[in-house]
Formats: sequence, structure tokens, C-alpha cells
Amino acid sequence: VKKIIVLGSGMVGSAIALDLHKRHSVTATDFNQQALDALKLRDNIATMRLDCSDHHALKKAVSGFDLAVCAVPGFLGFKTLKALIEAQIDVVDISFFPEDALELNALAIEKDVTVVVDIGVAPGLDNLILGHHNASMQVDFFECLVGGLPSARTFPYQYKAPFSPADVVEEYLRPARLYESGKIVTKPALSEPEYVEFADLGTLESFNTDGLRTLLYTMSHIPDMREKTLRYPGHRDQMLALRSAGFLSDEKIEVMGVEISPREFTSKILFDSWKLGDNEDEFTVMRVTVKGEGQTHVWDLLDRTDHQTHTSSMSRTTGYTCCAMVESVLSYKWKQAGVSPGEIVGGDAKIFADILEFLGERNICLKHHKSF
Amino acid sequence: VKKIIVLGSGMVGSAIALDLHKRHSVTATDFNQQALDALKLRDNIATMRLDCSDHHALKKAVSGFDLAVCAVPGFLGFKTLKALIEAQIDVVDISFFPEDALELNALAIEKDVTVVVDIGVAPGLDNLILGHHNASMQVDFFECLVGGLPSARTFPYQYKAPFSPADVVEEYLRPARLYESGKIVTKPALSEPEYVEFADLGTLESFNTDGLRTLLYTMSHIPDMREKTLRYPGHRDQMLALRSAGFLSDEKIEVMGVEISPREFTSKILFDSWKLGDNEDEFTVMRVTVKGEGQTHVWDLLDRTDHQTHTSSMSRTTGYTCCAMVESVLSYKWKQAGVSPGEIVGGDAKIFADILEFLGERNICLKHHKSF
Repeated sequence: VKKIIVLGSGMVGSAIALDLHKRHSVTATDFNQQALDALKLRDNIATMRLDCSDHHALKKAVSGFDLAVCAVPGFLGFKTLKALIEAQIDVVDISFFPEDALELNALAIEKDVTVVVDIGVAPGLDNLILGHHNASMQVDFFECLVGGLPSARTFPYQYKAPFSPADVVEEYLRPARLYESGKIVTKPALSEPEYVEFADLGTLESFNTDGLRTLLYTMSHIPDMREKTLRYPGHRDQMLALRSAGFLSDEKIEVMGVEISPREFTSKILFDSWKLGDNEDEFTVMRVTVKGEGQTHVWDLLDRTDHQTHTSSMSRTTGYTCCAMVESVLSYKWKQAGVSPGEIVGGDAKIFADILEFLGERNICLKHHKSF
Repeated sequence: VKKIIVLGSGMVGSAIALDLHKRHSVTATDFNQQALDALKLRDNIATMRLDCSDHHALKKAVSGFDLAVCAVPGFLGFKTLKALIEAQIDVVDISFFPEDALELNALAIEKDVTVVVDIGVAPGLDNLILGHHNASMQVDFFECLVGGLPSARTFPYQYKAPFSPADVVEEYLRPARLYESGKIVTKPALSEPEYVEFADLGTLESFNTDGLRTLLYTMSHIPDMREKTLRYPGHRDQMLALRSAGFLSDEKIEVMGVEISPREFTSKILFDSWKLGDNEDEFTVMRVTVKGEGQTHVWDLLDRTDHQTHTSSMSRTTGYTCCAMVESVLSYKWKQAGVSPGEIVGGDAKIFADILEFLGERNICLKHHKSF
């Protein structure tokens, strides 16, 4: 039994705490007491109210623990992770912060702590898969198609946001960086739409988003790499319309004598429109394609809301991948000073197999298809 | 030569003043001096700055004129028309106000003035056509499909507003009243979309809007009547999406600490998106179908921007129908105390023929097709 502190008890953080609690001594923390109370109702987990932006309190809180899971909101992630490294505790991080995690690599080596970042479903599982193939062959193509979608296709957006609509809107605005013929190229978000067929789902639409993250730097030897978001056909048209008409602009306009940011206004409207109801089903779909040496590997994932435990597929796929990684670190199977994203960890065949097994035990099944 | 005062020198009012000026003594008025200056630049028309909401000034201004054309903004229309009737001047009105014009009928009879209202393209020409057929047969079906559209189909809305976007948004919100099997029924705006084919244009999409106006009361013996708006396919989907997501709601939401009406916000965004550039072409398309006694009459109109005189088709079709009516009133061919909309005037075969001839001289051609 190890002592784990989980920072952030949101939707995913809670799922992580509940799973780890079955085998370890877990303390869940959050800034918001209500989130902790809700978690308490589900299981008898130790909780602690904690403001992670108070680094003094944070460092004090984590002392004595074997490992920290960092599941705080993205905007807090980088600084929280830095403080944790300074406190010399091993960390598995799924805060998906916008800054470059590899900037903390030198500090983590200096402090001799093992840090694994971006280890959810995507980024996370797709990075592990790429790392796995990259260790055994010359990869020349990588593509990750991924989406979290509601089962019910409700007009007009056919979409519900598992996280803040403002973050989704940001994904539809930030230019996408991808590799083409060995060079990083930048394309508009929502560009290059393609219909893609999925068993049990039918046709979805993919488009460019800026999701390669650490792969841009760690896998720069792969000439073609891209990440695309999946949505129901029609969603992209609606969002492109909003964007091109100016509804997502940051340039304030005057309405009723007040200067208003269209983007903030629209995020507010979408917040209501995109809220997933308590009893609404959702699913996570991902298709990772890795090519090289004449082989094509396709990995398909489809995971749905778990009604038994009331756990969303987004929490399951992100949270349990993180949990699997926690086990590998706690058992010292993965022990490497520095900051490692999934593509580095995935190069270890044993850990890759362990993670897939761990997910399989929780009914998250990746289908692997190899062709020539 | 008669003395005419044109109240309102906006896009349509100016076109009316310029046409009437060729044959009569015209004084154009507006609240806005810039509008009058712009008109002066085009022709040597007498102008007068006038605030039509100041009824004392209005009544003083119109004294000595033979006829007033009322082309003020809709929200001012009813009160302006009432003041004109009180001043005992004949009026041709195209202000298209939201109130029921027939409420002023008794007053107009009492004051012995001839008033013709809603005499543009639609309402206007379609009413004349219905009145024309209604005078000679038992009509059992009337449908008017009408739209003013930009020639260039620009993503995402494929639409430019010849008048305020707020007024167009109002059309997409106000429930449509129509006749079905002899009863007035109410359907949501944008409902019952249908594709309709037009020569030279291809496929347009029609949907219900609340456009029957006076016909609801004057033609209540016709069992089936409807008015539908025409747009390029795709426009309705976008507007329906905005409406159903809450972008057109009047219920204020809090953004950045301020209470904002989504509808006002969206009208502001659309104002920029829907502005017709100075050199952008537009057209007006209308199809009126009248059935009865086993006959089907279809009237088709397609009118485009006049590059020679820089006059939009919206100004041409609305303004010149109004001008034709002005001639009929000035020549006493139409002399009837009370408020008459087009369907009443159209019952006079001679005036109907005169108006079509007047429009034909200005290259506005209605194609009439009769089938059995």
C-alpha cells in the first residue's frame, strides 16, 4: 500500500482517486469543498481542502506521500507541476496545461523525480501507442483521430462538452501544428474536414486541431504526423459559421453601451447548450494510425459511459490510463528522473503491455489491426 | 405637375423621390441631413429636414401638397400615417409598420382621404395580384414566396440584409399566421422548409414567416393562404441553429459581469456579416401562386440591381410599385376614402394593368403562367 495524493477532484480526478483507493491509501484534494463532499459520498476517501496556487501549502501537503497525481485545471497545471518537482515528489500529470512540459525536464532530473505528463486518453494512450511502435520500427506516419461525444445527436451542435466550452472554443481557434514531409506546417483549426467511418457509430467528421503537443519535439524524425478532432457531421459547419461571422472573436464590440467580447458571450451561450445532463450517455472514440516499413497499424478505441459506477467514458479513458501509469511508477517499473510524456514511456514494451492489461480489466479495449 | 412630399429618404424613399421627380414637383424629407445631402448629389430635388415624430411640424410641412408618400422606418409608420390622415392629405404608405393599418380606415373615411398601404413588392405586388384574381374568380389558394438576396453566396449566411438585421431576426422569431382549410393557424417562423426551383437561380429554400398582414382580415374567405420567405439553402439551418442554441433570445445573460440580451448581441454581429457592399449585386425574387375554379396562376418576378442608376432591386421593386400607385391616386383613377391595401386596389382591372405597365417601363417584368 502506497500513499498517494490526488490534486484536483473534478470529474476525472475523482475517477482516479476512486480507482487508486481500492489498492492504496489515497488523499483527494480540491480547492472546492463541494467537490470533496461529493467524492466523500461515493467512497470513504480521505480528503483535504487545498489551494494548489499556494505553493507553500502545496509543498507542505504533499510531504510524506509516495506520489502525486496532478489533475488540476489546465491554467494551473504548469506552476503546480513545477512546485511538485521542487518538493521532490514523483508525479503523474493529466492537467494538460498549455505550456511545454519538457521545459521542466532539467529541473526534474536535477531533483531526481520521475514525472510522467499528458497521460490520459489523447494525449496519453495515442502517445503510448506511437512510442510502442517507434521503439521497434522506422515510423513515417502518425495520425490520431479522437473525440468525446454525446450518444444523442441533438440539434444544432450535436455536441456536449465534458470540459469548459471556452476550452473547446479555444481548440477551434488555435492554429493546428502538424508535420508534413518532415516539416512543421500550420493550418487553421477546423481545416481539412474528412468523413471517417466507425463500426457501431457510422460516419464522423474529422478536422485539424492543435493536439500533437510534446510529439512536435520528441518525434520530429517522423515526417508526417497529425492530430484531428472527431465530431458528428454538421458540428464543424456550425462552428465554422460562428467563427467566420465573428461570434468567436476576441475583439470587443459595443452592445447596449457595453464593450463585450463575442468569444466570452458565445462561450456563455454554448455553456448551456453544451451541458451534458446527468443521465445523458457519452462515449470516447479514438483511432490511431501508425505507418512505417510497409506496415500499417490501426488502433481503435470506443468506450461508453459506465452506468454501474456513473462514470463517463472521458473520465474512464483519461483517468484509468493515468491510474495504470501510477501503478508503473509506484512499482518502480517506470523509474526515470525527468519529465516523460507517453511516447517515451510507451517505448518500454513491458509497461505498454501492463497499461493495456490494466485498461482491459476495466473494460477499456483497444482493437489493434495490422496490415501490409 | 402635382406637388408630392416624400417622408423618409432612405434607400427606398430616395428611389421613389428620384422617379416621381421626373414628372412632378417633389420635396424629399428626412430626419437625417446626410440622407438629404446624398439625395441632392443625385438630382436637384427640393429637400426639407423633418422629424416625423413631431406631429405638429409634420402637419405643417405637408400642407399645400397633393399627396404624401410615407416611407419612414416601420416603428414610426403607424403614428405618422395617423397624423397624415388627420392633416387630410392623400397618402401612399410603404412604411410597413407592425400595427394593423385597417384600424385607421374609419378615420380616413371620416377625413375623406385616400390612403393606400403596404404597396411595395411584398407586401404590395402580391396583394395586387391576389386582388386581381379575387375580383374575377373564387380563389381557394394563395401562396407568396419572396426573398431579397445577394448575388454572391458568401459563407456562412449567404445573405445580406437590405434593412436592419434586427428586423430580419424579428421575422425569424415571430410566429407565422397562415390559413389552412379556412382557419388561421400559427406555426413557428422558419418552419416547413421546402426547396423551390427558379429559372436562372436554381434551388432556393422557402420557410414560413408572418407575412400575410392585411390579407388575414381582407381575404378571410380564402381557405388556404401562406407567405414564405426565400433564402439560399443553408441559411435557414444556420438561423435555426442560432435560435435553438439561444443566440436570438431576449432573456438577458450575464457576460463579464454585465446583463446582455443575446438577441441584441447577435443582431450586432450579424449587422457586420450581413452588410451589402456598395458594389455587391442583389436581386429580388417572388413567386405568387393563386388557385381557384380549377385554374392555377403563377406569377414570377426576378429583378436585379440596376447598375446604370445604382439602384438596388429592393428599392426598384418596392419603390416603383409605390410610384405606380402614386400616379393612380394623383390621376384620380384610384379615389377611395379609407385605408386600402393592395388586394383591394388590385380588384380594379384598369389600375392593375396600369401598375404592371408602369413597372414594365422600368424593366420590372412579371411573368404570368396560367394552367388548368
